Amino acid sequence: MSLKEEIRAHYFHGHEIYMRHISVDCVIFGFHNNELKVLLLKAGYANKWALPGGFILKDEHMDQSAERILKMRTGLDEIYLHQFYVFSDPDRSTKKINQQFLKNIGMTAEKSWMFERFITVGYSALVDFTKVTPVPDNISDACEWFAISEIPELILDHKKILDIALDNLRLELNFRPVGYNLLSKKFTMPELQKLYETILNKKLDRRNFQRKIETTGILKRLNETKKGVAHKAPFYYKFDLAKYEKALKAGLGFEL
Amino acid sequence: MSLKEEIRAHYFHGHEIYMRHISVDCVIFGFHNNELKVLLLKAGYANKWALPGGFILKDEHMDQSAERILKMRTGLDEIYLHQFYVFSDPDRSTKKINQQFLKNIGMTAEKSWMFERFITVGYSALVDFTKVTPVPDNISDACEWFAISEIPELILDHKKILDIALDNLRLELNFRPVGYNLLSKKFTMPELQKLYETILNKKLDRRNFQRKIETTGILKRLNETKKGVAHKAPFYYKFDLAKYEKALKAGLGFEL
Repeated sequence: MSLKEEIRAHYFHGHEIYMRHISVDCVIFGFHNNELKVLLLKAGYANKWALPGGFILKDEHMDQSAERILKMRTGLDEIYLHQFYVFSDPDRSTKKINQQFLKNIGMTAEKSWMFERFITVGYSALVDFTKVTPVPDNISDACEWFAISEIPELILDHKKILDIALDNLRLELNFRPVGYNLLSKKFTMPELQKLYETILNKKLDRRNFQRKIETTGILKRLNETKKGVAHKAPFYYKFDLAKYEKALKAGLGFEL
Repeated sequence: MSLKEEIRAHYFHGHEIYMRHISVDCVIFGFHNNELKVLLLKAGYANKWALPGGFILKDEHMDQSAERILKMRTGLDEIYLHQFYVFSDPDRSTKKINQQFLKNIGMTAEKSWMFERFITVGYSALVDFTKVTPVPDNISDACEWFAISEIPELILDHKKILDIALDNLRLELNFRPVGYNLLSKKFTMPELQKLYETILNKKLDRRNFQRKIETTGILKRLNETKKGVAHKAPFYYKFDLAKYEKALKAGLGFEL
């Protein structure tokens, strides 16, 4: 099938395999060089950028749809991906942008399931930047990382979706562990603190941070210090994975 | 319209006014006599109970649908109602229970939008028990409060929805204030602590609790103590509403 045929099939027959009215949008955060980034697709037809997204197959669990989308755009699987909010404004105007897209490739349609109202479920993941190979979908021109401080103009309500994902990620630092998959297997306390500071976009008190994170019990201190540090070489830590997994599910009282 | 005509119209023409495939289920928690309760509908056709729920009008924001449902079942509005999770298992079997319901009232249908797959969004609210007048919907036999410890058998995945709402409510105590609308305008520290203990279903240390909740800044201590208490009369407090509202939105670091 040519790209045009693929698109035609999607607009005229997509509703035969996907559920109507519901889509999934993924906010994929990456951490690299002490910077928080997000993965975006270039929506050339709108001269804007977009979050990676897609639809739910008729017999598919929504979580699987999100995992499928994440896998296609990043090559990653087995990532802690979770829904964070449903966006249901009746004025999301998905019809307009779809018509614009078709017009741009010289196609028109009177009627399509893609012109109907969509409620979208936001999923969010925090992934290892270095392990991702960004792959655009067939209607986008590129797939690239953007620093949180340098987000370009986004289509639809995607800026709002990103903002709420970010608020949610920051809020989650209070009750879910982060860091596994983002830091090396062993890491120092300053490295872990830097991760928290980057996500929160603020400085944290060193002693307070150490005391609080140690109280959670998710860390194991190794009997080994970092080499090549001038003085007061910091100890290495690793995550206690059983406790980490448990805290992911049960929550973690952790006031920052 | 007779009830039967109403039901027929819903099954055969409901999709003309509601969105397909998406429903809303509400977990309404009430606090009364130091007990946490939940509002349920008697689904006589299944010999089980059910969460209050409904559908999204074609031009309605999903939050409005949930508010509309809450209002119909409880008479309440302007309640802090929020989405907490989307339930999307493709095996939710809504078809079966709808066929069972129709059969029970001597109706059949070959095809109905109600037999299609539904993804449901869970909304949760914590309301003042004494202000609620429970009203069943037109397919239910009763609307009643049940203590969390005495939940009867529920239809579909409603037990799972309730469990996750409860987990979520407990987790939220770590980062959102509760109590406004549930306690009197002025209340003592032991009364507030009791509310937290009831929701968490565990005892909390008195001093720790007081110190932590005061640190959040959402309380104002009044210059007045509770009368008629034998000794060490406790001070009254009230919520600082501006800070309370702000904390509802921005979160609250509060480790219990």
